[in-house]
Amino acid sequence: MHPLRFTAHTSSNGVTERDFTLGEISGVLWSPDDGSAPSSLVLMSHGGGQHKRFPPQVARASHLVTMSRCAVVAIDAPGHGDRERTAEDVSARDDLRRADEAGESIAPIVERYATSVARRAVPEWRRVIDALQELPEIGDETPVGYGGGITLGTGIGIALAAAEPRIRAAIFGGGFIVNELLLETARTITVPVLFLLQWHEELVDRQSALALFDAFGSTEKTMHANPGGHREVPAFELDDSARFLARHLTPDRP
Amino acid sequence: MHPLRFTAHTSSNGVTERDFTLGEISGVLWSPDDGSAPSSLVLMSHGGGQHKRFPPQVARASHLVTMSRCAVVAIDAPGHGDRERTAEDVSARDDLRRADEAGESIAPIVERYATSVARRAVPEWRRVIDALQELPEIGDETPVGYGGGITLGTGIGIALAAAEPRIRAAIFGGGFIVNELLLETARTITVPVLFLLQWHEELVDRQSALALFDAFGSTEKTMHANPGGHREVPAFELDDSARFLARHLTPDRP
Repeated sequence: MHPLRFTAHTSSNGVTERDFTLGEISGVLWSPDDGSAPSSLVLMSHGGGQHKRFPPQVARASHLVTMSRCAVVAIDAPGHGDRERTAEDVSARDDLRRADEAGESIAPIVERYATSVARRAVPEWRRVIDALQELPEIGDETPVGYGGGITLGTGIGIALAAAEPRIRAAIFGGGFIVNELLLETARTITVPVLFLLQWHEELVDRQSALALFDAFGSTEKTMHANPGGHREVPAFELDDSARFLARHLTPDRP
Repeated sequence: MHPLRFTAHTSSNGVTERDFTLGEISGVLWSPDDGSAPSSLVLMSHGGGQHKRFPPQVARASHLVTMSRCAVVAIDAPGHGDRERTAEDVSARDDLRRADEAGESIAPIVERYATSVARRAVPEWRRVIDALQELPEIGDETPVGYGGGITLGTGIGIALAAAEPRIRAAIFGGGFIVNELLLETARTITVPVLFLLQWHEELVDRQSALALFDAFGSTEKTMHANPGGHREVPAFELDDSARFLARHLTPDRP
C-alpha cells in the first residue's frame, strides 16, 4: 500500500491546509490550525470538470473548519485536477466538447461518464478514509460525514454513502442526472440526509430530483430547496449544512 | 375602537404569558419575563379546528421567546377557540361531520370554509398588530414576522402577508388546499419565505404544495421538506424557524 504523504502545508485564518498524495490520488486536508483533534471528518467532492481546490469548495471547507472545528478532506475525482487521464476520460471530454460545439444535449455523455467516475471514486475514497484514520489526530473514533458537493460530487457521494458504513450523515446536492441505478442506490442509504435542491437547476429536471429525494431510505431526510441554478446555493445554507453535520456527527458537543 | 385588555398573566421558565381580548378577538401574548423589550414580534395562527393554545403552538412560542427573546402572539381564528360561532361556522362544522361520517371527502368543505376564515382573519390580525404597537414595550419599531402555522394557519398567513406590509418575513407550512386564488395571492408576496413541506402531507397533494412554493414572488424563499404528515414537523425545524426569523427580523443582533 502507498502511504499518505503530505506535500505542502499552509495556514491562514485559523485553518491549516495540507496537500497530500496517496498513491495516484491527490487530495487536500483542511483542519484547525491549533493542532487540536478535529471534532469530525467531513468528505467533500467537487463537481464535474472541477478539481479539489474549486474555490467555492475551499470556501465551504474553511467555513466548516471554523464553525465546527472539524477536518475536511477533498480529493481530485478520477480523471480530474492533478490526476492522470485515462482513455475514457479523454474520450468523454472530446465527446462533451463535440456535443457542445454541435449544440447537442450533453446529458447522455454526462450521465454515462459521471456514473463511471463515481464508481471509480468509491474505492479511492475508502482508501483515503483508511489512511486518514491512521493519522494520530484523527484515528478511527472521529465520526465521518459526507459534506456534499454538486453534480458529480453528489453522484460520488451517493455511491460512497451506500458502500461505506463509516459515513454517518450525508449532504447531497442536485445536478446529477437521476437514473434507475441512482435511485436504487439511494434507496439503500439509511443515514440522515440533507438534500440541497436548487429550484432552477439547469441539468436535471425538477421532478427527477424530487424522485431522488423521495428514494433515500433514511428515516431522517430533509430537502432544502432554494431559487437559482446549481451554482447559486445561498450562503445561509453553509450554516445549515454545518449544523446538520454537527447535529449528527457530534451531538454531544454544544 | 375596543382597547386591548389583558385578562390573565402567568410566568414560567423565563416566559410570561398574557391572555388578552381586543373587542371580540381573543388572544395570548408570550414574551421574555424580565420585561425587556422583545427583539421582534412574531404572529402565529393555529390550524383548522384548533385554538390559540394548541399545545404544539404553545411549545413553538416558548421556544421562540427563549431562543430569540421575541414576543409571540396567537389569536383564535374566527369561529375557533373562545370566539363566537357564526351561522357559517356552525354549518361548516355540521357539513364536515356529515361528510366524515358518510366517508366522503372533506376537502371541498375545508377549502370553502378555510378560505372564508382566512379572509375574515386578515382585518382582525391587522387590528391586533395596531393594538400591540400601542404597548410601550413593543411600539412601532419592533420588526414583525409571521411565524407560521399549518393548514388554516398557512392560509391565514398567506392572506395576511399579502395584505400587511408590516410583515417582513414569513413562515408557512403545508396542509392548506392550493387553489388558483391562493396561488395568485402567493405571487404577490415578496418578503423572505420559509416554506415547511411535510412530504407525506395528508390533505394536500405534493405537486400542488410544490406549485405553491413555486408561486411565492419572493427573491429569497426556501422550502424545507421532511418525511411525515403535517403534524410531524421534526423538532430541529423549530431551531431553523427561529434562525430564519432572526436572520430577517433582527439581522444586526448576534
